[in-house]
Amino acid sequence: MSSTTGSDFQELLKIIRAACDLQAAAALLEWDQETYMPEAGTEARARQVATLQSTSHELFVRDRTGELLERLKDEYEDSMSFRASIVRVAARDFARARKLSPELVGEIARTTARAKESWRHAYGENNFDRFAGDLEKIIGLCIQKAEAIGYAEHPYDALLDEYEPGITAAQVKDIFDDLRTSLVPIVHAIECASQPRNAFLYYSYDSDIQWDFGMEVLRDIGFDFQRGRQDISSHPFSTSFSTNDVRLTTRIHERNLISGLFSSLHEAGHGMYEQGIDPELEGTSLAQGTSLGMHESQSRLWENQVGRSRSFWTSYYHDLQRRFKQHLGSVSLDEFYRAINRVHASPVRVEADEVTYNLHIMLRFELEMLLIEEKVAVRELPELWCDRMESYLGIRPEGDTDGVLQDIHWALGAIGYFPTYTLGNLMSAQVFACAKSELGNLDEQIATREFAPLREWLQANVHHWGRKLSASEIIEWMTKGGISATPWLDYVRQKYSDIYGSLILGS
Amino acid sequence: MSSTTGSDFQELLKIIRAACDLQAAAALLEWDQETYMPEAGTEARARQVATLQSTSHELFVRDRTGELLERLKDEYEDSMSFRASIVRVAARDFARARKLSPELVGEIARTTARAKESWRHAYGENNFDRFAGDLEKIIGLCIQKAEAIGYAEHPYDALLDEYEPGITAAQVKDIFDDLRTSLVPIVHAIECASQPRNAFLYYSYDSDIQWDFGMEVLRDIGFDFQRGRQDISSHPFSTSFSTNDVRLTTRIHERNLISGLFSSLHEAGHGMYEQGIDPELEGTSLAQGTSLGMHESQSRLWENQVGRSRSFWTSYYHDLQRRFKQHLGSVSLDEFYRAINRVHASPVRVEADEVTYNLHIMLRFELEMLLIEEKVAVRELPELWCDRMESYLGIRPEGDTDGVLQDIHWALGAIGYFPTYTLGNLMSAQVFACAKSELGNLDEQIATREFAPLREWLQANVHHWGRKLSASEIIEWMTKGGISATPWLDYVRQKYSDIYGSLILGS
Repeated sequence: MSSTTGSDFQELLKIIRAACDLQAAAALLEWDQETYMPEAGTEARARQVATLQSTSHELFVRDRTGELLERLKDEYEDSMSFRASIVRVAARDFARARKLSPELVGEIARTTARAKESWRHAYGENNFDRFAGDLEKIIGLCIQKAEAIGYAEHPYDALLDEYEPGITAAQVKDIFDDLRTSLVPIVHAIECASQPRNAFLYYSYDSDIQWDFGMEVLRDIGFDFQRGRQDISSHPFSTSFSTNDVRLTTRIHERNLISGLFSSLHEAGHGMYEQGIDPELEGTSLAQGTSLGMHESQSRLWENQVGRSRSFWTSYYHDLQRRFKQHLGSVSLDEFYRAINRVHASPVRVEADEVTYNLHIMLRFELEMLLIEEKVAVRELPELWCDRMESYLGIRPEGDTDGVLQDIHWALGAIGYFPTYTLGNLMSAQVFACAKSELGNLDEQIATREFAPLREWLQANVHHWGRKLSASEIIEWMTKGGISATPWLDYVRQKYSDIYGSLILGS
Repeated sequence: MSSTTGSDFQELLKIIRAACDLQAAAALLEWDQETYMPEAGTEARARQVATLQSTSHELFVRDRTGELLERLKDEYEDSMSFRASIVRVAARDFARARKLSPELVGEIARTTARAKESWRHAYGENNFDRFAGDLEKIIGLCIQKAEAIGYAEHPYDALLDEYEPGITAAQVKDIFDDLRTSLVPIVHAIECASQPRNAFLYYSYDSDIQWDFGMEVLRDIGFDFQRGRQDISSHPFSTSFSTNDVRLTTRIHERNLISGLFSSLHEAGHGMYEQGIDPELEGTSLAQGTSLGMHESQSRLWENQVGRSRSFWTSYYHDLQRRFKQHLGSVSLDEFYRAINRVHASPVRVEADEVTYNLHIMLRFELEMLLIEEKVAVRELPELWCDRMESYLGIRPEGDTDGVLQDIHWALGAIGYFPTYTLGNLMSAQVFACAKSELGNLDEQIATREFAPLREWLQANVHHWGRKLSASEIIEWMTKGGISATPWLDYVRQKYSDIYGSLILGS
């Protein structure tokens, strides 16, 4: 490397670090808003977050950044070195950011700010019409955005790329088609089987005891409280301000024994991803999860593959029973295990079990594709939503609030986001299967609370890369193949045959 | 106003708002560091705060800001309107900021970063020599800074101006000379009087009960918890991210009944100042306390004039006694009142009572003047410190840690800061005396927990102005005179004659 490109690189890195510092500050302002901020601070906080984000964006998209990237591009191809990776990812981010005009970015910001409000009203009033006008505008702006960014095959590719870089709508469609074909019969088979009782999960369980139990589990699985913490917020989330400062939030319901625990495990999965990133990448744009799907794979892995497994509860159920003797004293481990894995179709995604969950996502992906292709009008959505829900899950939402209005994502302009949830679920099974084959006795390790081997394996194979490798590259490298529904379907068939009987084993 | 200057003003305001948003974000990052941040986050946090501060500075000191201010200057003189005040204060901030070269600012930042470390070591090892070299550099840089900024009479004026705009070293010297002449004999007279017993303050007092009592008092005096909160940190402080989001911190010692409560009252005084600023100024550089001295006047007013008054405890002592029956059951109100106002010379400023406190400050001011005038060498400081301490307070520190090394301020480059503590004490008495004469039965109001009249009077006469008026202008407007030691001396003579007997009434 010449000394000129050396100083060019240092200048580029300085720009990236400053932009990332401002992003990290914005993330802390948002964390504080959900945890400790007095409500009266909302207006100033929104303004401050917007200033941080736009200042970060302006710092990065300057002409100077483009000049530096142009001068550095030849020296940094095809290498996994720190420098090559910084330049490669910055060039991708820069190209994307520059394709969006400030006018379009401004128009999207104004429209979504309004749409959030109209969505809230529409949701509260169970009245989609209230939101439809803004949603039409958002779809129009998303199509404009896709055209500005450009795509090889389908405008949806350009939208998807923001959340799951490197994967196309056609690939998602193929994967989802496979998944749907196998999954719908499984769901129908389970519906015919007899259901485990689970009323005992909804007795009254002391919040402090739930919190303490959750904290113990997080410590055991290896979330590093020297480099992170957990707080309470109304909607659980995770965020990080550096790889050494990762925050989880959870909520505890007295009348739900498991929602707090599983949301903690879920967020800790996200958090351990951030904590596991190579320290060399700290403070740069590489120090993030590589995609939303890969992030979700880590949260789902700890929540479901680990947390809802029989091995896990073989070890922990006795502890939980001891803490809640009154309600769990007469409930056996097997009954408990079946109860926390009960499959029951619900119209609402966030209440869905792990089997039916992906059908909720597929429905949204299909509708998003139709909207972007302008094959369906916004006003037709409520009806279409209910029809598909009925065909996939055998239930019909009672109104818009339980149907087409249930998620805020579209109001935020996030079209192309939903598929990452299912991609995450599928990848979690691929990653877990691979870990299992390499670590050997993983079930036994989980049953004896030996989580370090799994955590360290995930760190070495997924976390430490940050954004150096894309999700597809990690999966390719791990499985010698692409993202696939097969390992997840295998996992579901095996687990739920055990719970509901072999009737669902078919195909 | 022409439409050209109208749009110039809007552009200026946008710059100021963005710079203030970044400052507010930096303040939240610092608050989080002291309250909830895991320690491992320290390194990234320091970097993020530095990025926010330098980005805010760069946004503001651009040539463009200067052009706008130049074009706006004629239209905005001599008016208290929002626009005139924004331009007037921005012009002052801009002129000051532009006089400091980036090189000098960088050199000061590097030197103080190193000095903080050497001060910590020196403090821990009770060895001034370890810190002396860095302090010499800091004094040199402060002299350079003063020359760069410029001054009419004395280089110290330029340093003081950063913390207490509009007041000169000569004025401070005159005020402090008056104060010293009267105060030293008072301190000596008290030393000859018999001391109240106060051992009961240091029994074991449950932290939760202390916290609850403190929160009740803060609610009563009118700190607005809809627009603020209180948390725990190792060093109490207050900060704000908008006038609607003001944060206090306190610390509770189980073996000290009063330190938590009085630090809460002190910080709430600061906090109510910020909460009381005119909402029109929100998000601009006017939405701050006008000087450190005026800020301190508000904290001291609530801590001392209100919180350490007989009227206050006439109302609250019964409550406190009820909460801590075991230790306070046999302690009378009078004994308690005398105990919390016990005057006892200590070598350490932060442990000083309200009577001896100002002598600690004067000593520092005198030494700072001698250093800036280069009449004394850094190496001579420890001896000189001890000699003056002995002459003012009759005690000699045992070592550097209890003497010249006790405060971190100099290591931070903050020369010109200490006088604001005493100016704050003196102004608190001026402001309180004025409130008393206008509100009439203030003692009775305090004794019946009727704090709204005082708080509203302070808001109308001090808080709501933000930086529209300087501290001297507020005092001038309120008293028809300048900052003076007389009201504070009157207050001290009256209060402590009551506690220690009339022997101290002299002069």
